[in-house]
Amino acid sequence: VRLDDSGVIHPAELIQRKRDGEELSAAELTELVLAYARDEVPDYQMAAFCMAAYFRGLTAAETHALTEAMVRSGETVDLSQLGRKVVDKHSTGGVGDKTSIALGPIVAACGVPFAKMSGRGLGHTGGTLDKLESIPGFRVELGREELLAQVRDVGMAIVGQTADLVPADKRLYALRDVTATVDIIPLIASSIMSKKIAGGADAIVLDVKVGHGAFMKTLDSARELAAAMVELGRHAGREVVCELTDMDQPLGHAVGNALEIREALDTLAGEGPPDLAELVLAASGHLLALSDLGVDEAEGRRRAEEAVRSGAAREVYDRWVRAQGGDPDPDVLPRAAVVEPVPAPEGGYVEAIAAADVGLAALHLGAGRATKEDVVDHAVGVVCLRKRGDRVEAGRPVAEVHARDEESARRGVAEVAGCYRIGLVRPEQRPIVLDVLA
Amino acid sequence: VRLDDSGVIHPAELIQRKRDGEELSAAELTELVLAYARDEVPDYQMAAFCMAAYFRGLTAAETHALTEAMVRSGETVDLSQLGRKVVDKHSTGGVGDKTSIALGPIVAACGVPFAKMSGRGLGHTGGTLDKLESIPGFRVELGREELLAQVRDVGMAIVGQTADLVPADKRLYALRDVTATVDIIPLIASSIMSKKIAGGADAIVLDVKVGHGAFMKTLDSARELAAAMVELGRHAGREVVCELTDMDQPLGHAVGNALEIREALDTLAGEGPPDLAELVLAASGHLLALSDLGVDEAEGRRRAEEAVRSGAAREVYDRWVRAQGGDPDPDVLPRAAVVEPVPAPEGGYVEAIAAADVGLAALHLGAGRATKEDVVDHAVGVVCLRKRGDRVEAGRPVAEVHARDEESARRGVAEVAGCYRIGLVRPEQRPIVLDVLA
Repeated sequence: VRLDDSGVIHPAELIQRKRDGEELSAAELTELVLAYARDEVPDYQMAAFCMAAYFRGLTAAETHALTEAMVRSGETVDLSQLGRKVVDKHSTGGVGDKTSIALGPIVAACGVPFAKMSGRGLGHTGGTLDKLESIPGFRVELGREELLAQVRDVGMAIVGQTADLVPADKRLYALRDVTATVDIIPLIASSIMSKKIAGGADAIVLDVKVGHGAFMKTLDSARELAAAMVELGRHAGREVVCELTDMDQPLGHAVGNALEIREALDTLAGEGPPDLAELVLAASGHLLALSDLGVDEAEGRRRAEEAVRSGAAREVYDRWVRAQGGDPDPDVLPRAAVVEPVPAPEGGYVEAIAAADVGLAALHLGAGRATKEDVVDHAVGVVCLRKRGDRVEAGRPVAEVHARDEESARRGVAEVAGCYRIGLVRPEQRPIVLDVLA
Repeated sequence: VRLDDSGVIHPAELIQRKRDGEELSAAELTELVLAYARDEVPDYQMAAFCMAAYFRGLTAAETHALTEAMVRSGETVDLSQLGRKVVDKHSTGGVGDKTSIALGPIVAACGVPFAKMSGRGLGHTGGTLDKLESIPGFRVELGREELLAQVRDVGMAIVGQTADLVPADKRLYALRDVTATVDIIPLIASSIMSKKIAGGADAIVLDVKVGHGAFMKTLDSARELAAAMVELGRHAGREVVCELTDMDQPLGHAVGNALEIREALDTLAGEGPPDLAELVLAASGHLLALSDLGVDEAEGRRRAEEAVRSGAAREVYDRWVRAQGGDPDPDVLPRAAVVEPVPAPEGGYVEAIAAADVGLAALHLGAGRATKEDVVDHAVGVVCLRKRGDRVEAGRPVAEVHARDEESARRGVAEVAGCYRIGLVRPEQRPIVLDVLA
């Protein structure tokens, strides 16, 4: 431990040693993170440290220490008094990802407590919280006691991450965002996992998205991130399974907050888009296998399917939404003033849908936030009626734009049309779940 | 030019492109530096940029742009109204370096105007300004008009760098100092050369120190820095020669402010230590060859030797010191209360004197500043009576410690004794000037 006698670290020295490729001790990294959270290490030193870490990487031991310090920088949620193994799910974010909103009620309907803390999105569409807030009355801010009581009574909760949870991550992420140090796999892994660990769940299913609409563009980088996160979770005593899933095209059809709630409800009714339904059921199977039900993944999946078929999952959804102050009736969800079809420019097969660009189109329609101050329009978005491999006829709609006015609809139609690549040969099918790390 | 239409830069994007190994345009670097100087780019982004530059380097074109922007960030000195080619000299700093104090009067005595702006030292002993301030009454702060008048009347001036000169460098250097981004050769070169260019001289002799007591530890890295500085000077229309000189042992005998002034005076009297005298004469020869005298280096050196022999250089020294308010009589220089010899532990030859450690010993005696707030004791220091290759007898003094009290002298003697390595074989002689880049 290279702290001096008083336990004080010398940040410039730590930066230099990381810069020179040395491994820092756990004590050094812990103190660096905690001192940063206490505002005793300035942003400029942390920025230099992150850039050195970009070039030199962080070892597994360094990443553990960093993650543990992140968790220790704030409060943690204690779910142990529920007396049950509580499960959680996290995705690295993509376009049209409403998985948790369908998955939570399914898992809870199978008798497994589900507690998820979620952030707000900055980007194409909102995060899970923004999607839920398109439900009139829905409250995402619950106190600790409320959260526990709701998980006990209803079986599940999805709430906003409170400010006292992992404050070091909040500060560090904001810094990385403006210093070109976001794409550092150990830092991404520790940012995600510190929040999951502080959130208190015993078992976590992770979903690393791969492809055009995801942060990870290649399967290799996604696998690296997945391995780092699984390792961090295990090290902290959590059971973790990580799926790598396709984000080359949007997930399901709907991209936009209320539109995605409707699609989650379709999925709970057994009528969701095939890729979304498959992802929800596969992830549910993994979560039930990690739970205290004592079932394997195949039995878990069977029970998840049964919860959909029987309507039990939808019943949990209704109780959950009501518990958080919302109205579960899909008819009360906001609708966009203008719905405009996007015609196929030619006939053939959909070869690809540029997911990130669909996300951008939704952002431009008002479905997301370009800056923290932007207000999300819950009604607007894009519906990709045709997906990769689907046959289309020239002039027939491949998608719909849901817009607040004609002008914005017109621009949206042009943007979405540009996202579709149509060819004469049907592309090979690709499964939604590309790989699973357990 | 990747500025947007309004000419605004996006620092995070510039950081990312540098991180990814791209070359930035001159316009981008210029705006980055000027915006940083205007406090519109925060320290944390500049720190990340510098660390990216540590790993990716800066191209020659980028270094030019950076240097020009540094110069443009503040005021510059216009010496053209003197109607003469004005010369300057800069060293990268070492232990016992009092070269400029002897060289200035020699060059001026040969009829070449010499104008040097100097900084204060942070480290073993003070900088040139601190050494000069050991002369009772000496003022280092001159206004622009005073500076011009003095160079015109006396032939030379050595003054403090004003705060309005290259303010971007001041801010950037302070940041690099605490973010492990000091040792980046293009940034060192641009820091030094931007100040030299802003200082207004037409021709500059640079002295890059190499070895234990220098920032550059190897001849290769010194050569790289030298080449970068010569290139920057040329690009800015200055004539530049760069010497690489030995700093494996202290330069001359004296290390400490008033002690070094005395040694500079000895050198002006033709009685300086051989290495110092050789360095002063060699550098003077280069400066005179760059001047408007129209002489070559050999003739320049001959004239420098003559200025010493005739006493003309010492006369200029006296006039110069008086012009800046000081008393040129060496007897008025402060003397330390305690002078203690450092005995040789064994007989033989001095194999090496660890220059950086001699510097540290002088710092501990009070001759330098560990922090900006420390007050320099001008009287104290170390005199290395024996240098590399000298024969020593066991128990006879190899050095003297000049201290403010017995306690501090005792510690100083032990420290300085530890700096000497004595062996049985006389080491090979090494010239003081290792190489010259012109």
